[in-house]
Amino acid sequence: MIDDAALLSAEELEARLRQVGAERYHNLHRFHRRLHSGGCSYEEVQAWALNRYYYQSMIPIKDATVLTRLTDPEDRRQWRKRIEDHDGLREGDGGIERWLKLTDSLGFSRGYVISTEGILPGTSFAVDAYVEFCRTRSVTEAVASSLTELFSPDIIGERVAGMLAHYDFVSKDTLAYFSQRPPQAKRDADFALSYAISHAKTRAEQDLVVKAFEFKCAVLWAQLDALWSAYVDRAVPPGVWAPGTVAGARGEAA
Amino acid sequence: MIDDAALLSAEELEARLRQVGAERYHNLHRFHRRLHSGGCSYEEVQAWALNRYYYQSMIPIKDATVLTRLTDPEDRRQWRKRIEDHDGLREGDGGIERWLKLTDSLGFSRGYVISTEGILPGTSFAVDAYVEFCRTRSVTEAVASSLTELFSPDIIGERVAGMLAHYDFVSKDTLAYFSQRPPQAKRDADFALSYAISHAKTRAEQDLVVKAFEFKCAVLWAQLDALWSAYVDRAVPPGVWAPGTVAGARGEAA
Repeated sequence: MIDDAALLSAEELEARLRQVGAERYHNLHRFHRRLHSGGCSYEEVQAWALNRYYYQSMIPIKDATVLTRLTDPEDRRQWRKRIEDHDGLREGDGGIERWLKLTDSLGFSRGYVISTEGILPGTSFAVDAYVEFCRTRSVTEAVASSLTELFSPDIIGERVAGMLAHYDFVSKDTLAYFSQRPPQAKRDADFALSYAISHAKTRAEQDLVVKAFEFKCAVLWAQLDALWSAYVDRAVPPGVWAPGTVAGARGEAA
Repeated sequence: MIDDAALLSAEELEARLRQVGAERYHNLHRFHRRLHSGGCSYEEVQAWALNRYYYQSMIPIKDATVLTRLTDPEDRRQWRKRIEDHDGLREGDGGIERWLKLTDSLGFSRGYVISTEGILPGTSFAVDAYVEFCRTRSVTEAVASSLTELFSPDIIGERVAGMLAHYDFVSKDTLAYFSQRPPQAKRDADFALSYAISHAKTRAEQDLVVKAFEFKCAVLWAQLDALWSAYVDRAVPPGVWAPGTVAGARGEAA
């Protein structure tokens, strides 16, 4: 039985989504466990922050893509908050700026980080797939793919507490990105969950909502796979940031 | 000095491309070495063939994408041969069919392979990035991204000889895909090299040709990284083919 054809209730659909999260969200990935338990080297934390900058930097572009597809002004007003959170209301504000404070603290020049020239191909392929998904799939699927935020307050709590306890090179200031995120993520996830549930009118559409969420879990998971392979297993692919070149000197010369 | 501004001669541009290949082509990847030297388990060869099917299956779609962008009928006639090679001139013919003979011999049902439901997200993200690159970048960059074929006769020779020598579960028949490819790849690479060199009229365009080729090397490399992580390092991501489920029974039940 691939799929029972009966329409799910809102509670059943939410339960399915939460089941997917319990099985596939990247809090289960070995890189996350290594990061928050203090097992990462300084260079591994650098690689994580450098690569995840690309994900952070593309989120407002992903959200603007979704914004182009929402036909209701109220939905757009809600969705627009995501872009404001990441880009800020003024210069020096916003999630991207706070992420750059983290990469600053890890010794990277802003020019190098923003150029993204040192990131792993596995990072850009996964992140670009996410943006493309939101451009080409149904708007309900695009919204549903953001539902990983249902789980982000928990992973952020674990990550911040663990990193503060285990790494003397991070501080509450350098992790300021995360202190802002949980209430934003909760607000956004509540909206997205309500939107996805109310807009999936058939069982086939409900199944696509679940698939969209699985897809997004894979986007996050694949980024940590690529980090582990390159920087924990030490199989750094050609042409990316190499540990030891703290400010990205190698990339800058390329 | 990021880039010398002088236009490169055809010979200089070709030499730069060959240098990139010498440094970044996936014949240098540890998974390739493991595969052709007999180090792979049966399950690792299965995983390689299953995942690479997706790459094979998308090549004609990538080539059709390029075909939509070539304005000269003679260029299109040349490029069309690529689609004929992969899709065949009749049912039961062509590179995709020959790849399926390989996955047949490794115990996968065709339905499971063609569904691609068991492949790694790292595979689809990389392959889809390649198709998207060919859709959105300049046509010269799209053509240049195919130049990895300059190097494919060598890697195929090494792969086939090594696999026949080391694995009793492969034969010349099951590796028939590769016996057809070297002359096709040589013809295609000669065309693409000539096209890229003659259409890159400025140094900036020449640099984009080199970047396009680097991008494609990363597409191939990232696929082997994902295979290594999942099936050699045994960190299989959620929701993909699991070794031991030979015909993809797990995927079929999902």
